[in-house]
Amino acid sequence: MKAPTSLEFLTEALRRLPGVGPKSAQRMAYHLMQHDREGASLLGRALSQAVERVRHCASCNTFTEHEVCETCLDPERDAGLLCVVETPADQLMIEQTMTYKGLYFVLMGHLSPLDGIGPRDIHLEKLVRRATDGIVQEVVLATNFTNEGEATAHYISETLKARGLKVSRLARGVPVGGELEYVDAGTIARAMLDRRAT
Amino acid sequence: MKAPTSLEFLTEALRRLPGVGPKSAQRMAYHLMQHDREGASLLGRALSQAVERVRHCASCNTFTEHEVCETCLDPERDAGLLCVVETPADQLMIEQTMTYKGLYFVLMGHLSPLDGIGPRDIHLEKLVRRATDGIVQEVVLATNFTNEGEATAHYISETLKARGLKVSRLARGVPVGGELEYVDAGTIARAMLDRRAT
Repeated sequence: MKAPTSLEFLTEALRRLPGVGPKSAQRMAYHLMQHDREGASLLGRALSQAVERVRHCASCNTFTEHEVCETCLDPERDAGLLCVVETPADQLMIEQTMTYKGLYFVLMGHLSPLDGIGPRDIHLEKLVRRATDGIVQEVVLATNFTNEGEATAHYISETLKARGLKVSRLARGVPVGGELEYVDAGTIARAMLDRRAT
Repeated sequence: MKAPTSLEFLTEALRRLPGVGPKSAQRMAYHLMQHDREGASLLGRALSQAVERVRHCASCNTFTEHEVCETCLDPERDAGLLCVVETPADQLMIEQTMTYKGLYFVLMGHLSPLDGIGPRDIHLEKLVRRATDGIVQEVVLATNFTNEGEATAHYISETLKARGLKVSRLARGVPVGGELEYVDAGTIARAMLDRRAT
């Protein structure tokens, strides 16, 4: 007995999603074909559209559909402050604390030499260009408080301080070993207020 | 701060997958956009293709790209035996035991009155037409040994016996409360050999 080719193809393709193994992929494929073909079509269109339209902000490196994202274009923000985060999800968490009114730079990852992720992969050159525009006064490092996040913060701090910039780090109100995305907003708010010079 | 629209659309669409909540959907969307755009395009194409091509076999009701599936067209199979299963995954498990050489009927579900799933939803009329073709001698019920599967087997058994067919059930070698898809092949082989008349 052979499964039909396009169902096999779909099951294989679903395994490209993070955290989806062979059993889950099969379950998802059968579910979509049996109970939610409309959802399958919708997801297909959403994927094509996202691949076509989503790109990186020329200024802060986050995902956007325009040359420069809305946050970077907001005239109400303090252009003298630049907060460096690992992911858009981390940025969103910080926004939700309502304690920060500056701009951002999104690394889209962290340094991880063991996985072959070096300074180029986290767009460090772009960050240095952004931070040395003459307007930014202080860079707030808000990478995760994991080993990789700390190492990334240390590396960026050394690089930017060598260029005469003031660099600070979120206070250690964030639990050591925790990931920003999963910490409650109150803790992050405290850490934002207590940020310290490095 | 707002996420770009097509990224939001993608995150929403990913939630149509079974077992995917808001956090997982966001993680998947970011992963695809950041690390696997090729995978995203591939999955998009796979979904469109599957929606377009996959349909139900006119004979056994399983997923196929043709009018009648390969298994139903196989002349080496014993057309006098019809095994009723809930899903294509269950059918695959039975095939792997190498103990069955008849044909199949795939219900694509089970009776579940509390969820509003009645005889129409599991294609019972189609099964009755299929089983009363004059060639089928015995119907082997291989629905799951869960409450819903047992109820489904009982209902089908009564319906088909009323039409003078011989109906059997997989032997209780399958653990009560277990789901076929997760049982080892040896147990299913034993249960196939020990099937009993109902």
